[in-house]
Amino acid sequence: MLKDITTPAQIRDMNIKQLQELAAEIRRKLVQTVAHNGGHLASNLGVVELTLALHSVFSCPEDKLVFDVGHQAYVHKLLTGRAQSFDTLRQAGGLSGFPRIDESEYDTFNVGHASTAISAALGMARARDLKGEKHAVVAILGDGALSGGMCYEALNDAGQSKTPLIVILNDNEMSISPNVGAMSGYLTELRQSNPYRWTKRTIRSGLDKLPLLGQPIMEFLEKTRNWMRNLVVDGQFFEALGFEYQGPIDGHDMKRLKRVFRRAYASDRPVLVHVITQKGKGYEPAEHAPDEFHGIAPFYVDSGRRINKDTPSNGQIACGLLCELAERDDRIVTVCAAMANGTGMTDFMLNYPKRFFDVGIAEEHAVTMAAGLAVSGFKPYVAIYSTFMQRAYDQILSDVCLMNLPVTLLLDRAGLVGADGATHQGVYDLSFLSSMPNMTIAAPRDMSDLMRLIQFSQSHDGPMAIRYPKDSCYMGPNMRRAEPLKLGEWELLHEGKDAIILATGCMVEVALNTAIELSGRQFECGVVDARFIKPLDEEMLQSLLGKTKLLVTLEQNSVQGGLGSMVMQRLSDWGEDFPVMAIGVPDRFIEQGTITQQLEDCEMTAEQLTTRILRRAGKGNAHGA
Amino acid sequence: MLKDITTPAQIRDMNIKQLQELAAEIRRKLVQTVAHNGGHLASNLGVVELTLALHSVFSCPEDKLVFDVGHQAYVHKLLTGRAQSFDTLRQAGGLSGFPRIDESEYDTFNVGHASTAISAALGMARARDLKGEKHAVVAILGDGALSGGMCYEALNDAGQSKTPLIVILNDNEMSISPNVGAMSGYLTELRQSNPYRWTKRTIRSGLDKLPLLGQPIMEFLEKTRNWMRNLVVDGQFFEALGFEYQGPIDGHDMKRLKRVFRRAYASDRPVLVHVITQKGKGYEPAEHAPDEFHGIAPFYVDSGRRINKDTPSNGQIACGLLCELAERDDRIVTVCAAMANGTGMTDFMLNYPKRFFDVGIAEEHAVTMAAGLAVSGFKPYVAIYSTFMQRAYDQILSDVCLMNLPVTLLLDRAGLVGADGATHQGVYDLSFLSSMPNMTIAAPRDMSDLMRLIQFSQSHDGPMAIRYPKDSCYMGPNMRRAEPLKLGEWELLHEGKDAIILATGCMVEVALNTAIELSGRQFECGVVDARFIKPLDEEMLQSLLGKTKLLVTLEQNSVQGGLGSMVMQRLSDWGEDFPVMAIGVPDRFIEQGTITQQLEDCEMTAEQLTTRILRRAGKGNAHGA
Repeated sequence: MLKDITTPAQIRDMNIKQLQELAAEIRRKLVQTVAHNGGHLASNLGVVELTLALHSVFSCPEDKLVFDVGHQAYVHKLLTGRAQSFDTLRQAGGLSGFPRIDESEYDTFNVGHASTAISAALGMARARDLKGEKHAVVAILGDGALSGGMCYEALNDAGQSKTPLIVILNDNEMSISPNVGAMSGYLTELRQSNPYRWTKRTIRSGLDKLPLLGQPIMEFLEKTRNWMRNLVVDGQFFEALGFEYQGPIDGHDMKRLKRVFRRAYASDRPVLVHVITQKGKGYEPAEHAPDEFHGIAPFYVDSGRRINKDTPSNGQIACGLLCELAERDDRIVTVCAAMANGTGMTDFMLNYPKRFFDVGIAEEHAVTMAAGLAVSGFKPYVAIYSTFMQRAYDQILSDVCLMNLPVTLLLDRAGLVGADGATHQGVYDLSFLSSMPNMTIAAPRDMSDLMRLIQFSQSHDGPMAIRYPKDSCYMGPNMRRAEPLKLGEWELLHEGKDAIILATGCMVEVALNTAIELSGRQFECGVVDARFIKPLDEEMLQSLLGKTKLLVTLEQNSVQGGLGSMVMQRLSDWGEDFPVMAIGVPDRFIEQGTITQQLEDCEMTAEQLTTRILRRAGKGNAHGA
Repeated sequence: MLKDITTPAQIRDMNIKQLQELAAEIRRKLVQTVAHNGGHLASNLGVVELTLALHSVFSCPEDKLVFDVGHQAYVHKLLTGRAQSFDTLRQAGGLSGFPRIDESEYDTFNVGHASTAISAALGMARARDLKGEKHAVVAILGDGALSGGMCYEALNDAGQSKTPLIVILNDNEMSISPNVGAMSGYLTELRQSNPYRWTKRTIRSGLDKLPLLGQPIMEFLEKTRNWMRNLVVDGQFFEALGFEYQGPIDGHDMKRLKRVFRRAYASDRPVLVHVITQKGKGYEPAEHAPDEFHGIAPFYVDSGRRINKDTPSNGQIACGLLCELAERDDRIVTVCAAMANGTGMTDFMLNYPKRFFDVGIAEEHAVTMAAGLAVSGFKPYVAIYSTFMQRAYDQILSDVCLMNLPVTLLLDRAGLVGADGATHQGVYDLSFLSSMPNMTIAAPRDMSDLMRLIQFSQSHDGPMAIRYPKDSCYMGPNMRRAEPLKLGEWELLHEGKDAIILATGCMVEVALNTAIELSGRQFECGVVDARFIKPLDEEMLQSLLGKTKLLVTLEQNSVQGGLGSMVMQRLSDWGEDFPVMAIGVPDRFIEQGTITQQLEDCEMTAEQLTTRILRRAGKGNAHGA
């Protein structure tokens, strides 16, 4: 059935029974594909009926569906001509795990980060109004996104605009981790409000089945119910922001969803439809552990068990040491933004529940709240993925660096991230942090250094960022190093008269391999672990100038503004005209694939680097360097 | 009276009559000082009684007052031992126009950007709880700040935390411009709700004056009123976020304010106190035009007229041309964030009201909403100060650059900003934008180029940022240039065999003056207007290498990550080992003063540059470059 669907127009003609059969087939396809490719499962299983109902009522691509975050758009992809290529999901050259305007005319906006959908949808609605068009614009967002402030900025603006705009709040009681924040409690209250239970249990099982009278009576009761509820308690919050509130509605009841969507479609002002869904629905392991099946690596369909057992993540290693230090240091607290598990901070949460703060998907608040703790004498560690930390740029600069506060940012997933692709690359943090005064930035090359950096940060009295990659840090040969680190301290791993690579973080391993390949080509290349990106090890940098002919900087970060820029700037400050070859992620977006494929795309594998360095050295000689 | 107040403890002993006399004296002092130094007036005149009441009830510095934005903290400064030095407000070495922890123990957090206070205060409240202390934490924010999403992230988290925290919502019906957004309408509704008018008109004038019975009766009525209102309509919004709502309260009635603050102090959970004030109160010109007296240059106290008549700002010049282009180009729309006036966009608002969107203090939403318009075929111009655009870092990267959408950012107040000081410096935009793929960045050296860049942007099909300084662009000798610009095109103003300065934006003028000074020292220095920072003019850059001995880059931006980094990176890519001296704002926060003083602080005046370049050239020769 699914493979014959080439356009969502076909959905519109289906009856409920056909839709239900299709839903079952979609669920099988989702489980099978994600089990093989990895990806987001629980959220997609939860929105099967919701997405079918959307495509039954709205005529895409004329009507615009805007998914928030977009990891729950798999069903939408299956229904919009992409069922045949769905097996390539998240693979190099294949379907993206997120909506992309260059992938399909049914995708309206590229997404990947939370809480943007209402803003984008409002822009589209305003464009529609200016052009005198009439189509619907529908933003679909999870309840987790509602902890992100941008949603309120958009609701506030949209509510005032009075233009027709439909916001579907897909409430599954959790974002990635179980939800936090007062809003979550408020939604629970709405969910459990008597009218909902009353409708669900009493009316639906009875009236709904009467063939002729049931429908109009139910609609009347629903309208009355909404009117009454809005008057008294429910939905007031959204009404205050200028939205008509509709709900809560069972998100697996397609008949009801279609009815409510049609009503919202007909409205001439902004409407918020509150839909209740179950994350992971229809696949037992995901129903029981929706958190684990949010974003998941390949697993066995029968048991739901992962195929490759995880080694401890870098976040977990950092967390383990923080737990240890926190025992003797009352100042240590940790802050995370809806991703205690993803950032590896669960143990801290369990061991020190009062010193652990999960603020929801709210990176701006996370950083400034941490600054408030720091200015009061605490030592906060803020664990957030590099790509999501981009949200807090201004807060890091204005609320942390300006007061020189001892807030430590733990930037997980820094560098290339693999299958999540362009929206999630953590290759900008060195660029945006390096121009912030007072900021110290470091990256460990292995687990041992990660622990030494955490230890260093404990006594460092100022802002600091420690970035580490998605993959577990390579365990170098001298993994048991214990000597405490000094601020800015680099490590000369070995010398090289022809060139020396200043590599940072996980690129140290690549640099060592490059040096080996180069030595086979009669080219003596040294390697320095530039574990501090800011401040630089000025003493060592100065000393290298007399030891080699060429400095090569190597980082898994945009080539513009990171370690290479820092090194060249310092040499320029000194008036040293020394040849530097700055290598990093090129100035374009790096698409999905394995991390190895992405490194290759960036021409940064040991083999490629060997060629590049030899070519540069040759050219350098020709120019007489 | 004011000059004798060395600690706010003195306020606590004053009766209402004394407080009122003090209020009058404070207003005189505010008007007189701001008339002389420039600064924020209307908002401070509005919070005189509010601030007096705060210091009457709360015992600072044990209790913590956290001001949002902080431009309304002048009264607080006058009451906390800074009355004697108040004449130095906003001058080099003097009192800051914003709270600063290094200025006084009564300032709890450095601020300057909106919507951060609740986050910072919640951090302090959590620190207090962890330490087992008992003091109050009070966040004071304007209603304008409520359009910023960060506030909701913080309310959501604070509401759940259930820890005692007081949020004072100072509602004066406007932030900088009159407020926008649905929330503003909601507050107006609360303000005009019958109970408030009833209390204000009926009770206050009557019961309040009865010496013994009046007070308890009024308190009883107030409690009942609040209970009733909360039950039915008002405050539901804040209650949904876990806050106890108190208000609305007349913000100029100190007796009533003190009573409500005392009650909030005693509460064991988060309380939001809704206070109504009048912006500009007590100074007629400001009462009539609070918008103009928000941030104001020196003026005559008698008339309120500015001492120096303004030349048209760069924003106004850009706006004038946009209005002209928009007549023939329906795609052009503009977006601003609560600062139509400050960014010079008022004319566009008046001429094209349907194509102008003021989204409130909501930079994140502004950029993504613009992206929604752009993806639908429009050509949005987003006018925001450089320093506030920092808030939208992730949206520029993820929602604009990733889809290569034709959104143009108009970055006003880029570079050094003078008296507003460190929190408002626009010296990071080149650094944070330059590593974003697809981004084009330009800076005009004068009005003519500003207009040519706007014209260029109209047909440029991708993301673009045009940055211009606070001061009106210098009108160069060839001001009437009309030839259209090409992407990346630089202009060689004159050659120089000893060195060539690549200057951008308003630094071109400084470079020309430097070249003149250098020519008097027998040093031939050329000047290039590097009006595009990205992409660079590669052809010209290449050609310069054969024409001179030293390249000097010069930008009013952090020396790390901007034009200098771009140039050095390109030379490194080419394998060209050519001497570059990269000059920009040093890697530290630049404090308040005049822009000239700040340039001097950065060692970037023509005279200082002359010395620096000669020294570098000498050193370069010594090293044999």
